[in-house]
Amino acid sequence: MAAVAGRYIDFNTKHLKKGDPLPPYNGKLRVYNMRYCPYAQRTILALNAKQIDYEVVNIDLIDKPEWLTTKSAFAKVPAIEIAEGVTIYESLVTVEYLDDAYPERTLLPKDPVKKAFDKILVEATGPIQSLFIKILKFPDTVTDNHISAYHKALEFIQEQLQNRGTKFLDGRQPGFADYMIWPWFERLRVFDNDQRVKIDGSKYKLLVEYIDNMLKDPAVSEYLIPKEILKQFHQFYISGQRPNYELLNEL
Amino acid sequence: MAAVAGRYIDFNTKHLKKGDPLPPYNGKLRVYNMRYCPYAQRTILALNAKQIDYEVVNIDLIDKPEWLTTKSAFAKVPAIEIAEGVTIYESLVTVEYLDDAYPERTLLPKDPVKKAFDKILVEATGPIQSLFIKILKFPDTVTDNHISAYHKALEFIQEQLQNRGTKFLDGRQPGFADYMIWPWFERLRVFDNDQRVKIDGSKYKLLVEYIDNMLKDPAVSEYLIPKEILKQFHQFYISGQRPNYELLNEL
Repeated sequence: MAAVAGRYIDFNTKHLKKGDPLPPYNGKLRVYNMRYCPYAQRTILALNAKQIDYEVVNIDLIDKPEWLTTKSAFAKVPAIEIAEGVTIYESLVTVEYLDDAYPERTLLPKDPVKKAFDKILVEATGPIQSLFIKILKFPDTVTDNHISAYHKALEFIQEQLQNRGTKFLDGRQPGFADYMIWPWFERLRVFDNDQRVKIDGSKYKLLVEYIDNMLKDPAVSEYLIPKEILKQFHQFYISGQRPNYELLNEL
Repeated sequence: MAAVAGRYIDFNTKHLKKGDPLPPYNGKLRVYNMRYCPYAQRTILALNAKQIDYEVVNIDLIDKPEWLTTKSAFAKVPAIEIAEGVTIYESLVTVEYLDDAYPERTLLPKDPVKKAFDKILVEATGPIQSLFIKILKFPDTVTDNHISAYHKALEFIQEQLQNRGTKFLDGRQPGFADYMIWPWFERLRVFDNDQRVKIDGSKYKLLVEYIDNMLKDPAVSEYLIPKEILKQFHQFYISGQRPNYELLNEL
């Protein structure tokens, strides 16, 4: 399987919903995605980093198409269809599959200990992921403990950057750990008015530099959602409205 | 690194707590464990299957020793110490590390698609894991949805057994998927009076046979907790008492 240069991927296809037919499989690797889903973004980032050619089938997660469970048994995104009817799902599983099947630019370190530590780092972001969901969907349940676990996780990542002494967690260019935790850093940028979660430059100098470097990475920047759009999208959850998945098509 | 035959592992060492000194490292692979922890059991099963020689340092998770965070940044078990001060944690990460570092008996399939599907299977047990915790710790929060998600997960596993047509999920002997989901099946056996979760032989014929086969596997049977002891241990949570970790030493 070869990576394709000069590829053009349409990330902003309409989100298919109940009643919409399954687009015919055309032989290209396909990602069942939701444009704003941080988990599906992991798969997209791995595909982008490896310069794999693929197509995006966006899914309306509120009103799911009937055929979604034939692609992903848990009816979730991401799922990748690697041959007609052969699908792999769960974000980290898809990325490890891609890293096995497309060795062009390896994302996971080969050394077993380094590889394990990259995965530990991804697990370490659990409190970041759960605080993000709580703020959007269950703001009344956020406690001081959640905020303090969140900051411990940030400190752990900053410590890792310090210890590794490299521009990215995985070296001179981003790798597995970098891409797998990135979606939450991209989203945290829009909470810059929330003092509880703000990634403050005085306490998190190295982390702020790192986030700036990640923003410049091509795999990240080609899929980046403009800050204002992301804020608008989050607002749907905060105000209990049905999310409008087509914001990027209405620009 | 070689597996050692004729090894003797003491699984039931006293659970160390706050104030207890860290046992000096003796060069042997060490597992920071809790005798009843289903996650730590994953690591133990992988070590047993590979016939690796190791020592168990059991941890009192209610009153944790001060040095635990130097072994596991999140102060959880399992953690494995592979050289003095070099530790790997998070259950699935430890097992994948062991599979990389000790290739004697591989647990994960080599084929990237089969490997991905083994991991998907493990993820599929999420509703089983969460229902188990809810029944023990938050019985009032169990809803019909949780019960139905639990049965969907059981059906998914039984379907996989059917489709694969092998004695174990991973073939003629248990592998990654089998060992990583086993701890919950071992524990579910003691809920045989709870009709909501009972694995009924008429609906789950293949699954019941599978569980019986797993019970006979040496890696499983050498670490198996007697049913009555497990019931007693669970009762501590159900009745809101401090768990007594030393039940197996008081026999």
